[in-house]
Amino acid sequence: MQRILIGNLSEYVGSEVLIKGWVSVRRDQGKMVFFDFRDRSGSVQGVVLPTSAAIEVAKDIRIEYVVEVVGKVNKRPEKNINAKVQNGDIELEVSNINILAKAEPLPFDMSPDGYNLDLTTELDHRALTLRHPKLQAIFKVQAVIIDSFREFMKSQDFFEFQAPAIVPATAEGGAEVFQVEYFDKKAYLSQSPQLYKQIVMTAFERVFSVNKIFRAEPSATTRHLTEVVSLDAEMAFISSWRDVRDMSEATVRFILGEVERRCGNELAFLGATLPTMIAETPTISLTEAFEKLGLPADKDLNPEQERKLCEIIKAETNSDFVYIWGYPTRERPFYVYPNLEHPEFNEGMDLLCRGVEWLSGGRRINDYKQLMDHVDKWGMDPKKIEMFLEAFRYGVPPEGGFAFGAERMTMQILGLKNIREATMFPRDMNRIDGLLSGE
Amino acid sequence: MQRILIGNLSEYVGSEVLIKGWVSVRRDQGKMVFFDFRDRSGSVQGVVLPTSAAIEVAKDIRIEYVVEVVGKVNKRPEKNINAKVQNGDIELEVSNINILAKAEPLPFDMSPDGYNLDLTTELDHRALTLRHPKLQAIFKVQAVIIDSFREFMKSQDFFEFQAPAIVPATAEGGAEVFQVEYFDKKAYLSQSPQLYKQIVMTAFERVFSVNKIFRAEPSATTRHLTEVVSLDAEMAFISSWRDVRDMSEATVRFILGEVERRCGNELAFLGATLPTMIAETPTISLTEAFEKLGLPADKDLNPEQERKLCEIIKAETNSDFVYIWGYPTRERPFYVYPNLEHPEFNEGMDLLCRGVEWLSGGRRINDYKQLMDHVDKWGMDPKKIEMFLEAFRYGVPPEGGFAFGAERMTMQILGLKNIREATMFPRDMNRIDGLLSGE
Repeated sequence: MQRILIGNLSEYVGSEVLIKGWVSVRRDQGKMVFFDFRDRSGSVQGVVLPTSAAIEVAKDIRIEYVVEVVGKVNKRPEKNINAKVQNGDIELEVSNINILAKAEPLPFDMSPDGYNLDLTTELDHRALTLRHPKLQAIFKVQAVIIDSFREFMKSQDFFEFQAPAIVPATAEGGAEVFQVEYFDKKAYLSQSPQLYKQIVMTAFERVFSVNKIFRAEPSATTRHLTEVVSLDAEMAFISSWRDVRDMSEATVRFILGEVERRCGNELAFLGATLPTMIAETPTISLTEAFEKLGLPADKDLNPEQERKLCEIIKAETNSDFVYIWGYPTRERPFYVYPNLEHPEFNEGMDLLCRGVEWLSGGRRINDYKQLMDHVDKWGMDPKKIEMFLEAFRYGVPPEGGFAFGAERMTMQILGLKNIREATMFPRDMNRIDGLLSGE
Repeated sequence: MQRILIGNLSEYVGSEVLIKGWVSVRRDQGKMVFFDFRDRSGSVQGVVLPTSAAIEVAKDIRIEYVVEVVGKVNKRPEKNINAKVQNGDIELEVSNINILAKAEPLPFDMSPDGYNLDLTTELDHRALTLRHPKLQAIFKVQAVIIDSFREFMKSQDFFEFQAPAIVPATAEGGAEVFQVEYFDKKAYLSQSPQLYKQIVMTAFERVFSVNKIFRAEPSATTRHLTEVVSLDAEMAFISSWRDVRDMSEATVRFILGEVERRCGNELAFLGATLPTMIAETPTISLTEAFEKLGLPADKDLNPEQERKLCEIIKAETNSDFVYIWGYPTRERPFYVYPNLEHPEFNEGMDLLCRGVEWLSGGRRINDYKQLMDHVDKWGMDPKKIEMFLEAFRYGVPPEGGFAFGAERMTMQILGLKNIREATMFPRDMNRIDGLLSGE
């Protein structure tokens, strides 16, 4: 008998089928035993009647046992239909159960409704809690975010490359970089594929990567991880930073559309509402942002100002998103393109949504002389970015790009309170899988 | 005027078009100047006639300048047609050129035909050599390998997850792991997502990942890198290791098909021939392999024996591929499933092609007691794999999986001599971008 996925059972009403999966719920009602069976495609209720050949084995089965189940798919009587759950209108009348693997008693309630763990316990038992529909929904949404990013980039003729994780002595340096014992030498973990994606762009024009980046920030807030997935893009032959803005907006719009299309059940289960992206996302300069806030201009918005600004934009336009551009040139990295009319401001940009930054990007300097001038003014060591500078020595078109984090977007789309919830195996200063001991 | 990609120019014969790109070749013939222009879609020859308004600027243009070019697409006269190259039947009669960026004189010949660098020089100038069609072809093929792996996995209902790079104290340990200074503690770079993919499989049944793995092997051979891209899959509810073999064979077959379909030009340019995969790839036990070689049985095949065996299989069946399974149980990791009839041999497998290993995998132990028995016999510290063991404590179906390296497959498909050629930014014990100094 061929296995039928639980998600397809409604096509088999009246037939005998074989399913394979786990026991999520068990309700022993004396003469009868009810189960919820689960596989990768979903859940279904099964009933073992007193007359079933499976009634004895059913008494022994516990939660998270792995089973092969043969049974008949029945329509439920009208009064027993539960329209709110998958397969709520059918039931499997079990004739045979074969136990494939047993499970020890669970350390806590893992039932779809009874699950209620604090985050620390949830993380301490990630290997088990990943089986819960809440966590499955979160990581399904994240997989769709990452997959639809790649899909959109490919549709726009972007070339995928693999950005390196191990890097040599970093140009931008700082205390927030992890050091690796590299044979008898030192290497570091990449904080950003920025310079690599610009190099690859000079050869392939339009490039993207999905890669890990690492930050040794000694802070354990709800927004910090030491290892995250960065979604990066860079494009040549732009006319202005607006082309980069437009491409990034189209990317986010596509991702939101795909999450809506492919994750309806997951969004409903998690009670999440997608943010509203109107036809043209409001785009204002940093100076204008401070005017809207009724504040004197400053170097950047602080988190409270970002929240306030998003509220104002939402009230004015119904957009949950707003682009801010034109940051003080000297406050940002050397490669960001200064505005020609007001060189004290640059053509970098951030996309905010619901009070927090989702994405950063902008136009970069493509002219070699201008780049070397900035390297000098920013006090960089050209030897440490020799490969990057070589790429720009030999003819580079006007260009720009953008980047955003998969975990943060997952967190924001789903309204999660802690970024660790949006990371399957979160790493922070106190935890790598388990809590770090002092050694 | 809207930009037309060079790859689409043959649709515009007789029209005036705007292209944007780089100058690959320049031939000044006194009165006229010929160029090869290049963009992400390909190359085309342009001619600037003495009467063209662009003749003066054409005299100043050098190789790798970035230009906007307006011109008329002409059919070439029959005698000038070159069927061997892209756009060999057309030519752009240039009426205007605008220089977007200049380039310094090149340090070596970068023309499509004149390019002839030793690998060290090629790597020392990776930022520039990436522009050459040979390198572009290699990394195009690699992008297709990775992309079609994901595409096939998704078509088979595998769930994509992100395997971590930073890991805690490793269970398998050894000298070949990189150590990271993790705040005031120690962490390591992942050598394999093996245990993570098995954990995620226990929750999602069928999972895959595209992730970096790291090996601190102090050897600088043509086959070793310290950072590579691993393509990993794991599947539950198998009947035997044969299901894993079949899935891995279908995966490789799909990838080869996609490379053939999408990379015809690249394969031709590189003079590469895809290996032959017959309807059913020969599959023999390690014992049978040694019989075929006329040798006494041993723990594993050495490289010379792998080459010889592939020759024998090729002569017998015309297959470039052969599966070997049934390795000595105690020679392989603790999680590999021992054969029920001959427990001294396991149900691990390797796929060889053209004399080298392409892929490894097999069935894994899913029963918790059997797993704990192996943990004990292999002398592992259960505390160091606590999360992994927790996943198996609560009911895991029969399962298995496989993995292969994107760089090695690229190298083997294209017949490259050194794996560094199949890596955009290769890392080895002596090089991270540039050569490592003693510090």
